[in-house]
Formats: sequence, C-alpha cells, structure tokens
Amino acid sequence: MVLERLQQMASHLTGQTNRPHPFDPLSTEEIAAAVAIVGQSHPDVFFNTVTLWEPRKEQMMRYVASPENVPRPHRVADIVAIGRGSKVFDGTVDLDEGKIVTWDLTEGVQPLITMEDLQIVETVVRKDAKVIEQCGIVGIPPQDMHKVYCDPWTIGYDERFGSGVRLQQALMYYRPHIDDSQYTYPLDFCPIYNSDTQEIIHIDIPKVRRPLNTAPPTNYHAEAIKAAGGFRTDLKPINITQPEGVSFTVDGRTVKWQNWSCHIGFNYREGIVLSNVTFNDKGTVRPIFWRISLAEMVVPYGNPERPHHRKHAFDLGEYGGGYMTNSLSLGCDCKGAIHYLDAAFVSRNGDPQTIKNAICIHEEDAGILFKHTDFRDNSTTVTRARKLLISQIFTAANYEYCIYWILHQDGTIQLEIKLTGILNTYALNPGESAAPWGTEVYPGVNAHNHQHLFCLRVDPNIDGPNNTISIVDTVAADAPVGSEENFYGNAFYAKKTKVETMKDGMSDYDGASSRTWEMANEGKINAYSKKPVGYKLVSREVPKLLPKEGSLVWKRAGFARHAVHVTKYSDEQIHPAGRHVPQTSGEPSQGLPAWIAADPEGSLVNTDVVLWHTFGLTHFPAPEDYPVMPAEPMTVLLRPRGFFTENPAMDVPPSYSSTPSQVAAKKQGLTGVVDSLSRLAFGGAAEKGGSNDA
Amino acid sequence: MVLERLQQMASHLTGQTNRPHPFDPLSTEEIAAAVAIVGQSHPDVFFNTVTLWEPRKEQMMRYVASPENVPRPHRVADIVAIGRGSKVFDGTVDLDEGKIVTWDLTEGVQPLITMEDLQIVETVVRKDAKVIEQCGIVGIPPQDMHKVYCDPWTIGYDERFGSGVRLQQALMYYRPHIDDSQYTYPLDFCPIYNSDTQEIIHIDIPKVRRPLNTAPPTNYHAEAIKAAGGFRTDLKPINITQPEGVSFTVDGRTVKWQNWSCHIGFNYREGIVLSNVTFNDKGTVRPIFWRISLAEMVVPYGNPERPHHRKHAFDLGEYGGGYMTNSLSLGCDCKGAIHYLDAAFVSRNGDPQTIKNAICIHEEDAGILFKHTDFRDNSTTVTRARKLLISQIFTAANYEYCIYWILHQDGTIQLEIKLTGILNTYALNPGESAAPWGTEVYPGVNAHNHQHLFCLRVDPNIDGPNNTISIVDTVAADAPVGSEENFYGNAFYAKKTKVETMKDGMSDYDGASSRTWEMANEGKINAYSKKPVGYKLVSREVPKLLPKEGSLVWKRAGFARHAVHVTKYSDEQIHPAGRHVPQTSGEPSQGLPAWIAADPEGSLVNTDVVLWHTFGLTHFPAPEDYPVMPAEPMTVLLRPRGFFTENPAMDVPPSYSSTPSQVAAKKQGLTGVVDSLSRLAFGGAAEKGGSNDA
Ligand SMILES: [Co+2]
Ligand SMILES: [Co+2]
Repeated sequence: MVLERLQQMASHLTGQTNRPHPFDPLSTEEIAAAVAIVGQSHPDVFFNTVTLWEPRKEQMMRYVASPENVPRPHRVADIVAIGRGSKVFDGTVDLDEGKIVTWDLTEGVQPLITMEDLQIVETVVRKDAKVIEQCGIVGIPPQDMHKVYCDPWTIGYDERFGSGVRLQQALMYYRPHIDDSQYTYPLDFCPIYNSDTQEIIHIDIPKVRRPLNTAPPTNYHAEAIKAAGGFRTDLKPINITQPEGVSFTVDGRTVKWQNWSCHIGFNYREGIVLSNVTFNDKGTVRPIFWRISLAEMVVPYGNPERPHHRKHAFDLGEYGGGYMTNSLSLGCDCKGAIHYLDAAFVSRNGDPQTIKNAICIHEEDAGILFKHTDFRDNSTTVTRARKLLISQIFTAANYEYCIYWILHQDGTIQLEIKLTGILNTYALNPGESAAPWGTEVYPGVNAHNHQHLFCLRVDPNIDGPNNTISIVDTVAADAPVGSEENFYGNAFYAKKTKVETMKDGMSDYDGASSRTWEMANEGKINAYSKKPVGYKLVSREVPKLLPKEGSLVWKRAGFARHAVHVTKYSDEQIHPAGRHVPQTSGEPSQGLPAWIAADPEGSLVNTDVVLWHTFGLTHFPAPEDYPVMPAEPMTVLLRPRGFFTENPAMDVPPSYSSTPSQVAAKKQGLTGVVDSLSRLAFGGAAEKGGSNDA
Repeated sequence: MVLERLQQMASHLTGQTNRPHPFDPLSTEEIAAAVAIVGQSHPDVFFNTVTLWEPRKEQMMRYVASPENVPRPHRVADIVAIGRGSKVFDGTVDLDEGKIVTWDLTEGVQPLITMEDLQIVETVVRKDAKVIEQCGIVGIPPQDMHKVYCDPWTIGYDERFGSGVRLQQALMYYRPHIDDSQYTYPLDFCPIYNSDTQEIIHIDIPKVRRPLNTAPPTNYHAEAIKAAGGFRTDLKPINITQPEGVSFTVDGRTVKWQNWSCHIGFNYREGIVLSNVTFNDKGTVRPIFWRISLAEMVVPYGNPERPHHRKHAFDLGEYGGGYMTNSLSLGCDCKGAIHYLDAAFVSRNGDPQTIKNAICIHEEDAGILFKHTDFRDNSTTVTRARKLLISQIFTAANYEYCIYWILHQDGTIQLEIKLTGILNTYALNPGESAAPWGTEVYPGVNAHNHQHLFCLRVDPNIDGPNNTISIVDTVAADAPVGSEENFYGNAFYAKKTKVETMKDGMSDYDGASSRTWEMANEGKINAYSKKPVGYKLVSREVPKLLPKEGSLVWKRAGFARHAVHVTKYSDEQIHPAGRHVPQTSGEPSQGLPAWIAADPEGSLVNTDVVLWHTFGLTHFPAPEDYPVMPAEPMTVLLRPRGFFTENPAMDVPPSYSSTPSQVAAKKQGLTGVVDSLSRLAFGGAAEKGGSNDA
C-alpha cells in the first residue's frame, strides 16, 4: 500500500504540467519521494546525499535535440546512505517508476562529511575528558570549555587509522568572548574524532607546547570596528539600478541572455553546473559546452610538522561545495536586479532542506566592449559591455570561496573565483619563528603556506560532441636571424600539438610560451580562418602542485599533477579524485589517474572528450590577510577563437558612433541611451570632451 | 625687451597663488612661455616636444617632505626641437628664470613621430606618381586616389636607409566608401616616406602581387549595423549614479581617496604618471611608490616576409602615449560621476594645444571586499569593495589601448590594460593561406601574429627610497617524501633570491613557481611578520619576447628581453629603450641594456632602485577580432605583502554584519546603507535569504 502511494506520488511529480527539466536538481518533493522509496526497503539508514543522477549524455543529447519526440529521461536520484555499523550504500532510485534501481554496499570508502557531521564535533570535544585535560595544559580551565571551539576537518588520510573508521580532525580554538574571532586563539593539540561512535579516539599533541595566545582579540565584525574607532565616513553611495528590469529571461532553470542559453544546475558537491551552453549565432543555435563545473579542489598546506602535514582539504569531494553554500542576500553579495535560485538537499534523517538564494543571477556593466577612433577625423565608435554573472559563495570552515560564472557578450565564458574569509591559523610561541612554513600574521598567530587548487571540468560540445584538444604554444621560427626566411629574426607562430591519446593529454602550464589549450571541431571549418571552429582555455594562474611526487597529496589529488588532463567522455566520470574522497590513501589514485591508466593509448581525436583543468594559487599568508582576507580574485577564460566568423557583439548598441562622413558634414553621430546619467564629479557645466561632440 | 617680458611672464606664472605643483605637467601658458624663450635664440625650429623636465628626485623628496621650508623646484621645460637640415636639438628651459639652460645639437637620432608628422603622409602618398602607379597595378584607377588611405608607421629600423633620414612607412589601404573600414582593403605595397623632404623615397613591392580585395565591406559603426539589420533590442539599462557625489577629493592634480594619495601627472610619452603614491595607515602617511608609469611598449609582428618583418612599433617611444590620447566622453568611456583632467601639448609650430578630458578619474563598485560566515550560527560580515580608476585611452593607428590605473581599498594598485580597436591587416590572395604567420580574419584579409609588450616602470618608495628587490619562487622542500623532516612530502616555502646587482636583476617569469618580485625596505620590519615591509609585483601575463636573440627587435627593445630588470635610480633613466627611439639600430642597445652594462656589479641592496617589468600578451588574431576587437584585458598587481600589520580596509562599512551574540539573541546585526536599491529581477516580495535575516 505504501509502495502504491509512493508510485502515485512519483507519477504525480513527473506528470505535473511544470515538469522539471531533466537537468534540474531534485526538488524537495523529489528528495522526499526518493527517501520514502529507500525507506521502504532500508528503513534504518542515514542519508549522506540524495542528488540528481544525471541523465546519460547519449539519451540527453537526443532529448535536447528533439524534446517533443524523444522520451524524457526518467528522474533518477543518486543516493549515498550510511547504515548500521557504518556501512555505506550507493544507490539509485527511479522516481518515475517509484523504485530502487540499484542498491550496493560499498566497502572501504568514506562518504563526504556533511554539515551535520561537522556540527556535532564541537559539542563532543567540549565534553571529552582528555580534551579538557589538554585545554588545562594550554591554560583554559574546565569551567571555560564553552569558550573552546573547533573547525572539524576531514582527516585527509592518516596511515595510523586508515580508511576503515570514519574520522574527522578537530582544529581547536578558543574565544575569550563569544564574538571574538577564534582564529587568533588556536590551540596546539588536535583531537581525532570518530564520526560513527561520536567520540574522541586520539589527540595529537606536539612535542613543543604552545600555551594560549595572550594577544588581545582582533575582530572584523561591525561591533568590533565601532568599538575600535568606527567606520570610515568618506564613502559616498554608488547606486546601481535597473529601472526597466533585467536583460535576461529565465524559464525554469534555463537562462537566456545576449545570445547565450544555458541550464543552471546545482548539486551538493560541485555547486553550480552549467549544461547545454549554446550561443545563438545569427539565428543558428550553436552548442559550445555540454557541461561545465568546478569538479574538485584541494588545499594542500606546506607545513611538514605533525599533525599539520595532514592538512589538505578537498572541499568539494570531502564536504561539498553545494552543501556549504551561503544563502545570499540582496544588495550585500550582489547589487542591482537579482534573480535567485534555491538549493534543496537531504538531511541526515531524510528530510528535504532548502537553502534560499543559493545562486545569484545578475547583470553588471563591464566597461568598454570595443572602441575605435579614426585618428584622421576623430570619428569614433564606443560601445559598452555587459556581463551576466551566475554565482554562489560557499564557506569552507575558515575560508570563503566566491564562484562567479560569467558570460560575456563576445562569446567568452569566464570563471572568476574570489578567495576571502579567514586564514587557517596555528599557535606560535613568543619568540618562535613562523618561517619558512608560515607567517606570523598577528602576535602568536601562525598562518601556514598553502595552495588553493581547483579542477575545472569542461565537457566541450563545440558544434557537436566530437571535438579534439590541442596544446597551443607560441614558438619562434627555427630559421636563424639573418637567414633569408627570417632575416630580421622576428618570425613566430602558434604551434599546435594535438592530444592524440589520454596519456598525451597530461600537460603542464608554460608561462613563457603563453600556453593555451584549444577545443576544436575538426568536422566544422571556420569559413574565414579555414581552421576547425574552436574555443580556447586561457588560464594564467597555474602553479604546479607543490607537494612532491609520491607524496600523500600527489597520490590523492591526481587531478592536480598537471594543468590539463583530457579523457574520453564517460557518464561515470564526474569526480576527478573519485566519488568517495575522504580517507582515500591514493593507492591507487582514484579518478583521473585511474581512468587514464585504464586506457592510456585510447584515441582522443575527433571524439567525445572532456578537458580537466587545474588552476589556482599559492598563498603565502601576510598580515594584510588578517583578521579577514580582502578578496583575492583569479580568472579562467574560455574564449572563442575561430568559432565565430566575426566579433559576435557587433550589434550591441553603441554609446556613441560617428562616421567619417558625419564628421565631414558636421553631423551628430548616433548617441546611445546608456550615458545620460553620468555627471561631472564636481559639478559645473558638462564641458564634454570626446569626439562625439561634433 | 622681449626677454624682460618673458621673465615677467615666467615670474607671473610661478608667482601666482595657485602655483603648479612641481609634478604638474606644463600648462598651456608654460608651454607658450618655453616656446617663446626658445624662439628668442632659435627662431627657426619646429617643436617635437615641450614637456615637464621633472624635478630631480633628491630635491623633490626634500620638497615633498617639507614644502614650506624647502625651496620649490623651478619649473623647467624639456624640449626637443627640429631645425633646418633635420638637426635635432635637446634643450631645457628654466621657466622661473625665463632662460634656456641647455641647448644641444644631438647627432644621429630621430625624435618621435608626432600626430602632425603622421597626418601629412596620406596627403603625400595620394599625389605620388609611383604610388598612383602601384595603385593602378592592384586595381585602383587614378581618379580614385582619394579613396586611398595610409596608416603611417615609424619604419622601425631598415638597414637600407639607416638612421640619418627621418622616415615613415606607409601601410596602404583603400576605402570603397569614405565610411568603410579600410582594414578590409589593405594594399600590397609599402611606400617609404621621408619626413624631412615630405616625399616618397622608395616603395617596397612584394614578389607576389595581391590585387585589391573584392570582398564586400564589413563595418562596425552604427550606420553599418543599422543597415545590416539593426541593433539588438534586449538590453535594459543599468544605471550607475552617485547622488551624493564622489568619495575622492582633488587638489590641483593630487587625488585623495580611501587613505590613498597620489599626484596624477601626464606627459606626451608615458601618458599618465602617478607620483608620490602614499597610504594613510591609521594616521601615518606612508610612502609606497615614488613614481609609476607605463614607460615603453613594443608590438613586434611575427611575419618574416618583407616588408612585414619591419613591423614593430614602440607606441610610446616612437609616437607617444600622451600625444595619441583620446578626448574622453562622459557616459561613454566611463560611467558614474567623473572628474576629468585635460592635457596640454605643443604643436609643431609652437602653439600650445589642449586635449580635453584626457584623463578620467572615477569610482566603481568592485564586488565583495571581504566576507565571512560562521558555519555554526550563520553570523556573517559582508563588505563591498570600491575602486578608484585613473584612466586614459590612446589610439595607435589601428589599435586602441585603454589604460586603467586602479587603486583598491586593500592597498593594491592594479594596472589593467584593455586592447581594442582594429587589427593591423594585410592583403591575401584568393586561395592563399595566411598560416603560419597570420590568420585570415575575413575573406582576403590577413592579420599577422604579434605581441603587445608593455614596460611598467616602478620606482618604489616603500617607507622610503632605500629598497631591495627579491625574486620570490614557490619551492618544494628538498627533504624527500617519508623523511622525518617531510614525512608526507608536503613541505613548501617561498624562496627569496635577493637582487644584489644590476646583472642579477634581469629575471624571467616562471609560471610554474608562480614567481613574484618583492620590493622591500630592509630598514623597516613588520611588527607581526618580523620581515621587511614590502609590496609584491604579481603579474601572470608575461610571454617571452618571441623575436629571437640577436634579432632587430631584441636589439632595439632591450627592456623586453626579461620580465624584470632592476636598476639603481638615476634621474636620467625614464625611457627603457632610450630617449629618442625611432630608427635606432639597437647597436648598441639603448636604455636598460646600456644602463646595466655600464655598472653590472653595482649593488642594488638597500638603496634607491627602480624595477622595470615587461608584460603583455601574444596575439594570434581570430575572426572574432574583426571588424573591431572586443576588449581584451590584462592585469598587473602591486600588492602589499607584509606592508601593513592588518587588512587595511577593516573600517570600510559593511553591507551587513552580525555577531554570534546577536544571532543568539535573535537581534538584527548592522545593516549598511549600500544595499537598499537592489531588487528582485522578476518582482515579487523580496523573499530574502542570507544570514542577515536573523
Ligand atoms: Co589561502
Ligand atoms: Co593585438
């Protein structure tokens, strides 16, 4: 009877008039249905994730091409559940059919740590006798244990404990007052927490003890700044308004803007996923990317002293960039006219939960799009640019990651990531040097060197799924200076090296050669350039992985060994460090290294390929990063190069445009509508310059 | 008698109540005075440049420190004039004393090509019989010579003609209609023009002839877009207004904004110059940079075929980034509340000329400045950033360079350059391939590979003039994986290599090690980090110079051989490719190579040093760049690292801030004033998310 009700519920869900797009995340109703269906057979599990099992690409490409004629892919939930005895189950539930499709016990893995898993640790450490004892040693009396805090981290991998027991490491802090930043008061010991038994099983204690910091608090919240002298008073408002509304449309989760169209997905792990990204090229809708997302990241720390050697969080694979996402706030995180999308997740006990305003969609002015002045007569065309930002911000304990997927009118897609939040800190004794593995950013506060390495997964669909990747280097011609072929020695060209096989795809960055990677469709030739149509990955923040070859991080974060990996498309390959990341030993390496090792000679030419790009930055902390870090941006571009036959933004209305004949006739050119509100800063007649004052 | 009048004029100028700041560019009155004074002794010269001879640093530092007590440096004009027989004179005129200080005949040099020099060439080529003959050969009848255009370029250096005769090369084009873009119709021959005799002295004719392109015009101005189907209609306005005015003040040419202060100079060559850049650090005005500017650039093209092998413009040294600057237009080039500064130059015959609105100063919202959310209770602080842009745009024939000097609240100075405008193009026969030295961007239009390499001159003044430069690389520790010192193999650190001597300063970029360059004051230790206070040059667009070692460009553009050069400060060393750049052979190399060769072992430690940074990009044209290029940005950062003892933007008012105790008490936190105008894109109740809805 219950099964029948569930099937009705499922059929109701899928039969409704506003049926979800096959790429849509599971709704709260769908999550509830999936949980209920699982509960029929497995009433005793906790839920780790209930997320969209994405439709298979082959079926989905047919569906997208002809949604009226191709059967709509079933709604399927991808489930990770944890049963008694910490058994891990990976399952799928077909919501259209209201039944479990697969349900497998997976041995030897640890699913990610959810926010609920994290939150409980602090309560436990405060009550643990050995922790209380250690707090006493560093100077915190038992009655002050409510002032003790911890940021629970996944343990990474610790050979003493292995992968069998579900662990977290508790990075310990203290707050003199509830509103004080705990990062000024790191404690020197590190409890290890068993998530199954909910108890502290070990405490890592350093040989050199570091008593509680005696420096005064340093805080960044408004109350603290007011108390310390107040806010600066010399900032006048900059108002950004869109009185006629926005220039984009949203149909479900499909956004259309300035010839772009894409579906905006979201999951617990990657956060925002852009699917079926297309560009209307003068009436022809041309596919560009099938799916792009941040698929993984790792933050290795550079201090080799125990237990800091263990710090290297995979924030997406171990916690989830969706699970940790902020609920965004109008006028704070974004300004202007905003459209928000919510996110739905499952709780540990199976209840659907919603994060309001998880995704922000908005436009911004983007400066000059193009300009040219004829020096002969000052005839000028100047056109301003607009960009569309699809963004989220997630909080990974101390850090904030602000993720901006930015569409530009010129066909470029930009991924901008801003790092802000607070440094991970450790205790430092008076007179002790933080060098070379860290920096003293405040008295008694040691912030360790670290890298932020992100893995961008790009599934190109450049005028179709069969694409070829090439490594492009700028190279001087061989012919020597003075030779007939290169008399002045100035010859240079773009050298393209086609990625023929998976093993060829593993390539590093070369700053000196301005290396880029081209994604091209060899079956489609640009009518003008006579070369295959393509997009280029342009990325300049590409440090090498600093943990050494053979190191734990090198083994676990195989995706970070090279700037680019290329694989043949597989529906199963979304997570470059593996599906279940916590406590993997890296032996063997999961994800990319395993996939490539399985078919190193597999041809990648003119077939369905995926490009994985690891980029980021190496962060040597400085006092300027404390007590809260000014946002540090980094950018990756996907640029059309030979994809279009002309600048695709030619028909954006100019701010001003005059022609030579108008100048000669002393006629006014075309003045656009965008500039009428600008004013001179200090008043006075608007004594304009500019060649548009003909 | 005339001299007396001039002295009176000079004394009037310098005695007025609003006397110019010693860094101010020469005013039109000062230019007129200088010209008049020169005319007394040298009535027969034409003027190439009359610009500020900048006060000597030693004197000026004393003056800045105590303007009341130190004599104000005299106003001195730096003059280049051309006399009969193409004689070049370099002179200085003391305007306070109304007299010529120096006046030297300089042999074997060619001063830069002014806009007036450029403009005349087109008139000459149209009338030249041999040019008319060549036009006939490519298909242009004599009666259509008014449809023939040319972009006159400096010749670079051509060994056939040497440096003795003042030359330009005329890159030839055709316009079917006066409003058509000539770049679609390049002509295949290249006249050489003698600027002294104003005649064509030679024509370079390719072996393979390329008749006039028969493709239809492709244009970008408004009339053309309207004719081709009109503008897109789906862009709604984004209004940016500052109803209470701007947050900066301007006193003369000194701007103060958000703790920053700097003087904004401008000259014919470098364009914007920022001098005496300081930051008010909690009441202490701390010097950071004495002077920063774009000092030179070179655009080498990669086609070795004659005469294209010759194309490599030094746009600053050969034409002047000030001389070519645009008159900016309110609401087009910049939006919001704008303050403009004009620029004054001399004309060939000595008349002062003004470019209105040469410099734009304005503020922009800059997204999130910092944010942190406590995952325990969602207490949040989020603060928006502001930036101040000081910008100019100059047109170098086909190209536009948009230069943005950007001050950030966090102490960062950003130089952003956007490239837009039109590709330099050449003729291509039907069926001919543009590869490998170029791209066919439109039928019959070949755009050659090229680099845009800029030389940023930074005269650091990090808490004083005595600074030390270090090369900073991220480096893995030596200790192997598994060793006691590096058990997990994760150790890494910032390796600093001090630039001890001028020859050590020549350093290349290393993308893999995320190389940066530090400018530090070893005499001033950061109280927290315990290291010398410093700023870092962070630059990621640093291609190597592609013209080969020993090539013409390599010889002439010595500054571009390395990413960074460091020199000991000299008042005479502003121009890294030399004072007079046109037609230099590069034997010996002027500027940086000569200065370093003169004292390779000279110590650079803890002394007054200058850092020269060459950055830019390699441009392989694509059809997307045509008929006008979407702006391509590149960025260089000067970031405080260990300069401040905390984030210097802590007191910027937040958009929202709540504390744990406010959250616990269900109290509203502090809501700033900046967010009240934001709206939901599609109406509805402002169903806010965000943790500020406590
Ligand atoms: Co960091
Ligand atoms: Co270019």
